[in-house]
Amino acid sequence: MDNRDITGHISSTFNDELVTLSTNVLAMGSLVHEQIRIAVEALNAGEDSLAEKITTNEQRIDMLERQVDEDCMRIIARRQPAASDLRFIMAMTKTVTDLERMGDEAERIGFMAMRLAGTGKKGRHGRARRGFFELTHLGGSVLTMVEATLQALRERDTEAAAVVVRNDLEVDHEYEAILRQAMTYMMEDPRSIPRVLNVMWAARSLERIGDRARNICEYVIYLVKGTDVRHTSLENLEREAQSPD
Amino acid sequence: MDNRDITGHISSTFNDELVTLSTNVLAMGSLVHEQIRIAVEALNAGEDSLAEKITTNEQRIDMLERQVDEDCMRIIARRQPAASDLRFIMAMTKTVTDLERMGDEAERIGFMAMRLAGTGKKGRHGRARRGFFELTHLGGSVLTMVEATLQALRERDTEAAAVVVRNDLEVDHEYEAILRQAMTYMMEDPRSIPRVLNVMWAARSLERIGDRARNICEYVIYLVKGTDVRHTSLENLEREAQSPD
Repeated sequence: MDNRDITGHISSTFNDELVTLSTNVLAMGSLVHEQIRIAVEALNAGEDSLAEKITTNEQRIDMLERQVDEDCMRIIARRQPAASDLRFIMAMTKTVTDLERMGDEAERIGFMAMRLAGTGKKGRHGRARRGFFELTHLGGSVLTMVEATLQALRERDTEAAAVVVRNDLEVDHEYEAILRQAMTYMMEDPRSIPRVLNVMWAARSLERIGDRARNICEYVIYLVKGTDVRHTSLENLEREAQSPD
Repeated sequence: MDNRDITGHISSTFNDELVTLSTNVLAMGSLVHEQIRIAVEALNAGEDSLAEKITTNEQRIDMLERQVDEDCMRIIARRQPAASDLRFIMAMTKTVTDLERMGDEAERIGFMAMRLAGTGKKGRHGRARRGFFELTHLGGSVLTMVEATLQALRERDTEAAAVVVRNDLEVDHEYEAILRQAMTYMMEDPRSIPRVLNVMWAARSLERIGDRARNICEYVIYLVKGTDVRHTSLENLEREAQSPD
């Protein structure tokens, strides 16, 4: 599709099918983003009512994943798409897998938030809240990454996609800092171990969501530029993202 | 391809291309299996020389992933494959993603094995080895799952694939038991925290490898039966796996 007029296709039905595919992937992305947003809010609020909301979206996400994959198959079989359309379709079938698993991680975070809510209430501003500030910050960074990813996908903006890939490095560093700090907390106060482990698992899930956002950004570069940038250096990826179409 | 004679295709080049695709995916599977085997052995042996071997295979795995995805694109663009061949191709492009990430988890386990080797040598048969027996057992279970997955993929055996999906539940239980036990160890002896955390991370990676093996088995059922069994109950999946072609 490479920024050319989407109506340039011979069959307008074909064109409609590609638009529907794109719409469904973005709808799935919005739902997943909402899951992550609720999960991060549940961590911050330290209460479990929010976490329960997460499961309600899950079925819709799963349904969209199946729908998109079915549509990809159907479009390929009927329309015999040419190179750039085919790239778009293949990128979408890979993207929904990552989106669905981002939703799974959000669910895990929601679960940890519920468990943390059970242990954290007594010491809301005291020792029991230690580790929360950093987790909240990581949650915010990851949420921003996911928003930027969906934006890059919507607008097929490879330069924005490259920025997300670079930001993932910062998320990884934040995550590692949380792990180191969590270990210190646990050794200082072994009674905090069950609670701090939940902080660690939530941090892990956030970090994984960041990884998957990065994957999707790599697919954006692939579908626009036609170059597979997985397993290449960040410098190479950025060069590809900035190259002329 | 549905068990029909592979030479039934009109073009023998097309046929060769599908065979090559299958061969490359299985070769990638073998490399990933080898990574996991070395990682589990590194955990057991408690020494770091094995863990270093893991990185050597990584580049070949990444290369095969790109190769398979390129081939999938090329075959679709040139051959306009019909339903069952197209299903096979789409299943392969999903499978390589899971295989590659299984390789990443193996690398993480190797890294944990190196760190454990650094902390575990002094107390080989004492307290410092606590948690290792269970981890070794989990490693064995996951390795068996991966072998069964590759076998099911090679033979397009949906019933064998369904068995792997069922076994993943046991792996999940084993993993949860390790987490509970690890928490007890840490609370009993806070000095053990850094070491036991490595045990937990290794267990987590093993559990994730099991999840990805299950994903691949779901693709096997999809490519043979034409039914998407993701997000369905185990009973439903087993019914599909046993249904006549």
